[in-house]
Amino acid sequence: MSKLVYFLNGPNLNLLGLRQPEVYGGTTLAEVEAECTALAGELGLELRCLQSNHEGQMVDWIQEARSEAAAIVINPGAYSHTSIAILDALNAIECKVFEVHVSNIHARETFRHHSLVSLRADGIIVGCGTHGYQLALRQAAHTLG
Amino acid sequence: MSKLVYFLNGPNLNLLGLRQPEVYGGTTLAEVEAECTALAGELGLELRCLQSNHEGQMVDWIQEARSEAAAIVINPGAYSHTSIAILDALNAIECKVFEVHVSNIHARETFRHHSLVSLRADGIIVGCGTHGYQLALRQAAHTLG
Amino acid sequence: MSKLVYFLNGPNLNLLGLRQPEVYGGTTLAEVEAECTALAGELGLELRCLQSNHEGQMVDWIQEARSEAAAIVINPGAYSHTSIAILDALNAIECKVFEVHVSNIHARETFRHHSLVSLRADGIIVGCGTHGYQLALRQAAHTLG
Amino acid sequence: MSKLVYFLNGPNLNLLGLRQPEVYGGTTLAEVEAECTALAGELGLELRCLQSNHEGQMVDWIQEARSEAAAIVINPGAYSHTSIAILDALNAIECKVFEVHVSNIHARETFRHHSLVSLRADGIIVGCGTHGYQLALRQAAHTLG
Amino acid sequence: MSKLVYFLNGPNLNLLGLRQPEVYGGTTLAEVEAECTALAGELGLELRCLQSNHEGQMVDWIQEARSEAAAIVINPGAYSHTSIAILDALNAIECKVFEVHVSNIHARETFRHHSLVSLRADGIIVGCGTHGYQLALRQAAHTLG
Amino acid sequence: MSKLVYFLNGPNLNLLGLRQPEVYGGTTLAEVEAECTALAGELGLELRCLQSNHEGQMVDWIQEARSEAAAIVINPGAYSHTSIAILDALNAIECKVFEVHVSNIHARETFRHHSLVSLRADGIIVGCGTHGYQLALRQAAHTLG
Amino acid sequence: MSKLVYFLNGPNLNLLGLRQPEVYGGTTLAEVEAECTALAGELGLELRCLQSNHEGQMVDWIQEARSEAAAIVINPGAYSHTSIAILDALNAIECKVFEVHVSNIHARETFRHHSLVSLRADGIIVGCGTHGYQLALRQAAHTLG
Amino acid sequence: MSKLVYFLNGPNLNLLGLRQPEVYGGTTLAEVEAECTALAGELGLELRCLQSNHEGQMVDWIQEARSEAAAIVINPGAYSHTSIAILDALNAIECKVFEVHVSNIHARETFRHHSLVSLRADGIIVGCGTHGYQLALRQAAHTLG
Amino acid sequence: MSKLVYFLNGPNLNLLGLRQPEVYGGTTLAEVEAECTALAGELGLELRCLQSNHEGQMVDWIQEARSEAAAIVINPGAYSHTSIAILDALNAIECKVFEVHVSNIHARETFRHHSLVSLRADGIIVGCGTHGYQLALRQAAHTLG
Amino acid sequence: MSKLVYFLNGPNLNLLGLRQPEVYGGTTLAEVEAECTALAGELGLELRCLQSNHEGQMVDWIQEARSEAAAIVINPGAYSHTSIAILDALNAIECKVFEVHVSNIHARETFRHHSLVSLRADGIIVGCGTHGYQLALRQAAHTLG
Amino acid sequence: MSKLVYFLNGPNLNLLGLRQPEVYGGTTLAEVEAECTALAGELGLELRCLQSNHEGQMVDWIQEARSEAAAIVINPGAYSHTSIAILDALNAIECKVFEVHVSNIHARETFRHHSLVSLRADGIIVGCGTHGYQLALRQAAHTLG
Amino acid sequence: MSKLVYFLNGPNLNLLGLRQPEVYGGTTLAEVEAECTALAGELGLELRCLQSNHEGQMVDWIQEARSEAAAIVINPGAYSHTSIAILDALNAIECKVFEVHVSNIHARETFRHHSLVSLRADGIIVGCGTHGYQLALRQAAHTLG
Repeated sequence: MSKLVYFLNGPNLNLLGLRQPEVYGGTTLAEVEAECTALAGELGLELRCLQSNHEGQMVDWIQEARSEAAAIVINPGAYSHTSIAILDALNAIECKVFEVHVSNIHARETFRHHSLVSLRADGIIVGCGTHGYQLALRQAAHTLG
Repeated sequence: MSKLVYFLNGPNLNLLGLRQPEVYGGTTLAEVEAECTALAGELGLELRCLQSNHEGQMVDWIQEARSEAAAIVINPGAYSHTSIAILDALNAIECKVFEVHVSNIHARETFRHHSLVSLRADGIIVGCGTHGYQLALRQAAHTLG
Repeated sequence: MSKLVYFLNGPNLNLLGLRQPEVYGGTTLAEVEAECTALAGELGLELRCLQSNHEGQMVDWIQEARSEAAAIVINPGAYSHTSIAILDALNAIECKVFEVHVSNIHARETFRHHSLVSLRADGIIVGCGTHGYQLALRQAAHTLG
Repeated sequence: MSKLVYFLNGPNLNLLGLRQPEVYGGTTLAEVEAECTALAGELGLELRCLQSNHEGQMVDWIQEARSEAAAIVINPGAYSHTSIAILDALNAIECKVFEVHVSNIHARETFRHHSLVSLRADGIIVGCGTHGYQLALRQAAHTLG
Repeated sequence: MSKLVYFLNGPNLNLLGLRQPEVYGGTTLAEVEAECTALAGELGLELRCLQSNHEGQMVDWIQEARSEAAAIVINPGAYSHTSIAILDALNAIECKVFEVHVSNIHARETFRHHSLVSLRADGIIVGCGTHGYQLALRQAAHTLG
Repeated sequence: MSKLVYFLNGPNLNLLGLRQPEVYGGTTLAEVEAECTALAGELGLELRCLQSNHEGQMVDWIQEARSEAAAIVINPGAYSHTSIAILDALNAIECKVFEVHVSNIHARETFRHHSLVSLRADGIIVGCGTHGYQLALRQAAHTLG
Repeated sequence: MSKLVYFLNGPNLNLLGLRQPEVYGGTTLAEVEAECTALAGELGLELRCLQSNHEGQMVDWIQEARSEAAAIVINPGAYSHTSIAILDALNAIECKVFEVHVSNIHARETFRHHSLVSLRADGIIVGCGTHGYQLALRQAAHTLG
Repeated sequence: MSKLVYFLNGPNLNLLGLRQPEVYGGTTLAEVEAECTALAGELGLELRCLQSNHEGQMVDWIQEARSEAAAIVINPGAYSHTSIAILDALNAIECKVFEVHVSNIHARETFRHHSLVSLRADGIIVGCGTHGYQLALRQAAHTLG
Repeated sequence: MSKLVYFLNGPNLNLLGLRQPEVYGGTTLAEVEAECTALAGELGLELRCLQSNHEGQMVDWIQEARSEAAAIVINPGAYSHTSIAILDALNAIECKVFEVHVSNIHARETFRHHSLVSLRADGIIVGCGTHGYQLALRQAAHTLG
Repeated sequence: MSKLVYFLNGPNLNLLGLRQPEVYGGTTLAEVEAECTALAGELGLELRCLQSNHEGQMVDWIQEARSEAAAIVINPGAYSHTSIAILDALNAIECKVFEVHVSNIHARETFRHHSLVSLRADGIIVGCGTHGYQLALRQAAHTLG
Repeated sequence: MSKLVYFLNGPNLNLLGLRQPEVYGGTTLAEVEAECTALAGELGLELRCLQSNHEGQMVDWIQEARSEAAAIVINPGAYSHTSIAILDALNAIECKVFEVHVSNIHARETFRHHSLVSLRADGIIVGCGTHGYQLALRQAAHTLG
Repeated sequence: MSKLVYFLNGPNLNLLGLRQPEVYGGTTLAEVEAECTALAGELGLELRCLQSNHEGQMVDWIQEARSEAAAIVINPGAYSHTSIAILDALNAIECKVFEVHVSNIHARETFRHHSLVSLRADGIIVGCGTHGYQLALRQAAHTLG
């Protein structure tokens, strides 16, 4: 039976492929979710794909993953840098957490250099474009054995 | 007639007793609310118990308390450290404000040491576990005379 | 045909005229919106007036403005100082952005001195009271030609 | 048999009720000690009340409490912010430690925002006026069971 | 009778329209002064237009405005960020002060982000190009009633 | 009747004239006290001269001055830079406070540049050698009228 | 024809699998190189595996890669955080650069949080254990098309 | 023969007695100069009284004092905190330098706490009101013997 | 025809050779200007030598150089470290700028380590004594071809 | 004749061997003093062993050592990090000073990393447990020849 | 059988006795090694003496000590303050580590105050001149029992 | 007889002319060395040209220069900003030291603004391109007389 993975995207990631393509590439979120769902199947994983611009909604979903998911792949977007609430929610659960950033946040503005979520993550993929989500899934599959 | 006290809990406090018991203890939020409602009765207070993971919802409720409540007992959780919006909402109202933190935030990570809400609070109870809510109610009763 | 301008107000600005009048003046948000709608008409602009205490809601509306609005006049309130999500949403759109602060944020607490939104704004009006919204509209009209 | 609690007050707290009543209230230290001794009796505790302006004396007393006391209720006053010696003395003993600040130190000058004693405290009561000592005693009684 | 407004420009603003037009636009100071004088007339104000590269001269003029002017519209240029002397001069007078920056100083080098003059200003217009001077005049007229 | 002035010297000032004469000069504390007592007489003041190496003792004496003295002339020595307890004691009293530093603390090590006592002082004399005590007395006499 | 990839490991990575297995896991560098060489073959890449404890040697090899390699996979180890020389060498070449850290550097000591190499990297894999090298190879293959 | 003392006042001190009397007192600069000239005569000193709002003028006068004056009494006003040029001019001369601040700069805004001129001064009088100038003259007379 | 070079010296450099010879050497500004004028002739350059203690004057001259000079050799003295006005003036012109410091500012007080002018300079000569001016001229000649 | 060495221990060191043995080891202060007195005899030194929790007492004893001791071996405990008074006392005497810390203060909390006493010490022994006192005595004997 | 101790000296320590004798004393490294080898023999230790100016070489030797040495006595010289690579190498081994600094690094430039190696050291000897190496050996012998 | 000058280039300077020509120009290191050798001959100097990417090698060569060279011309490249070892080596020798940076390091990333080598240099040439080496040689010749 395949393992459930929450596939969470935070604020403005619904605009992937539509905004600033020189930073975030030209693939839309729908395309990313489709590609990743396919790869997940190959890896014995099942994805639940969710996106929100609301920090509280992200917290709600992470809490919901608590009793259901084997892993979370999360791109917290802008909330990476300021949300202690998301960090606390992740600290409250025991499944594996893999963090993805599409662009290289360490080469952008200073306020993007530090991620609170990284304090909790079991793996971090940065700057690999939307292909980074696939790497995160592979790492999840590898870790979950 | 008993005085109305808003009893507000912020993000992840719905998991009290369920997550990291070595940090937050083993009492659930429902139990806390029940104990505090009982104590409030003894002290001539009436509680309205609310919890949300959404910063905006916290602001909405504080604004709502504006015309109704004699005091607010609030554990803003993770938003304590970053939410100017909650601080502004509290500054916009005139009732007494008592802040509770279940764990000793001053002995944890640096980003938990400072609370914006403390700039406004009329009393702060830190690190007394879930019993701290009861101390806050006693202080509210004492202050409201 | 008049150009559409999103007229966005952030947390606690629904209390304009009701809270701390020595800081924010005595005009209510409804009055501000009425005055500005009238002025907009004179300037060939049409306003869509929205207010929320929720950061995520602000992001949703900015994204919505993406395909509709010629300009945004925004008072992000407390989120000015911490919301990378709102900044990212504004970076994702191409229309003009005018930022308003009713009080002089540079003469208040240190944590109000810096606005992330200002990194993106095409014009910033600070400390002019609620009249500042009218100046922002005039600047919008001037810029949109 | 009642449990012994050291009730320690640091520098300038002998002036409680006499200095800056707008900050510290109008109750004198003698009155505080009397009220608290009475409450302690109800709670099955016995108080040993001590006050000094000397940091070294505070250290001496904490060391003395080592073999005698079940808990310490301490308002370290100005030494809260700078005394590693008091922190070290508290680290050298095993009884419970409850810290009290009469005024809201987090809303005063920056150099009062951080307390070294809080690194060790089992509970912290801030800004509740002289009533805060009573809350500390209640928390001590609660913790000591 | 029209009210006198000092219209002060600081260092390098005599080069408006001549230097870095991508930053400051293509309108010259003479043109700005002409446009603003016209608008002032409509608004019942009279302008005294002055420009200097000398900090001391700016102080002299502000002191001179003390007994004559109803308001000052000032673009302190580079001195905004370092001149306590200009701040002190403005603190020594009682008329209204409106600060203008042609470019968006908050989106440029760090040393341009903070303005000492803003500590005193009754209104601040940033990044609106040379049109910002007109907004400042409108705000002056609005404030002076 | 002459007014009482507490003349307080802090740690290591009993070594005046004996240690590091290139920094502190060659006059002993006894000589300073004698000269100042004489000058005080001329100025209608009476001195109570006290010195201690103990911070707590300094606090005790300041509290004692509370009900007796018209002014305090104090050289807090090393405690100037770290003692919130002495600052608090001075804040608790209402008489005038004049601070003296024999050497120019602003031209020495960084940790001597800031004095907490200066937050409260009604006059500060720095780097005038032991003659600075006489200036402080003159200022006291001038202020007390 | 397969593309050449430099596979560079910095100081102490020759001890992989031998030191602190709770931090770095139990796989040796030889095993990592063998696994990655195999995977590289599948992906149409050829690896040149090199390790040194010498910063200067790392710089020499990166310069050498200049005219030969299509990509560099590099774990700069301790030099990540301090070596401007390695950054400059990477800036001097045009091939793709993928950075790997076996442990989660963002959850360790502060001095490991920032990597100079990340300023240049085209992809960064952190905290995925030695499996992270394989993810880097996959990203290289994906990027090189 | 009396010794020449330059008596220099910096920006806005020409407004002494006219601006913010709660900060600077009610004595005008002309009165201060008259009182001090009289006292100087008693002390065997001759004053040359000068005031300017221009930093460069202050530098010019200090250079001029180089070959003429036995001492400088200087209140650099706002330039105290930022003018390396004035510091350098004072470093270039050998006569004694006494610095005066009318208000207690250490109890005002942070940017007034540090004086570059203090790095060079042979004596500093702070917060003694306009009487501080007289203390500076007495110190000058004492030092010059 | 020789190219015009503005040869500007800032505050206190009129005292070259007269003040602190252990820091600045024994050559006077007149001698420097004579030597450099001679060398300039050999290099096909013509010098306009100017010195002022006034920041505003420096700005005026730089603006004047705008339409006349092929290059500026400037020693901004103390203004190097604080004058955004001079930086802005240099940014407003297009000719080459060469910055000279007679002493090694990087080995002196911290506040001399950073030069705003260096952000704009096309070449910087530090600590070469008054001979550094000649190096700057050679570099100007080399650059102007 | 043997040389006198003051052997001074600061706050909480009377608890050596009794508190936190995992940090400070199991040897008591009495045992340390006995061992060191014996070693001192072998090395031709005589010890005067003193301990206090009072900063002022430490200062008193250092001043007393002034005319008597050839060297001071001092473990200032918590006062190492904050006591300018002890530093000043040590600066006022001419004998050799050797500083001992039982635990490795550089690997503990940040506020223990810096010792003011180290600015004056002629030798520093850190983290060698109570055996470090013996090393300090050997260094004293070596230095005193 | 004697225990092997690596005796490592870092950059520029081959110049001991030759450079800056006022800082480092007049004993050469060869003399230090000879004295220490002799003392080691008495203490039942055997030394392997090595020196290099290369950070990578230091790392290589520490790794080599891994399987051979009972302890390392190391003076990392300039690399103390910046080398995470040396720290990591020391963290990778289990033998005891004793750190020596000939001069008092805490009383020199700020960048010498902090040693990364001290985070790992089992004992630190600072400012005892070349005799400090002997103290380190004694501590090694004491610890190894 | 000509004087020997070590002509040292640090990491990545072997790529001069090959990498980032918009930053470093198009002249190769071999060409620079040839031009400078020729100019040295004219100036009565003899060059020994050396380049390495290894910090330790730079230290070795500086030590070697100790007994041979009259001056060192050094471009420490990336090591300028972090190498205390190179600074110490330069401090250990007595010949003159001239530092060259091809690009304007003060206008690049923050971590390039500060050079440790500048603390020791007798002259610093920045941003003059590869022509800066010639200026350094001229300054060497001038200084060596």
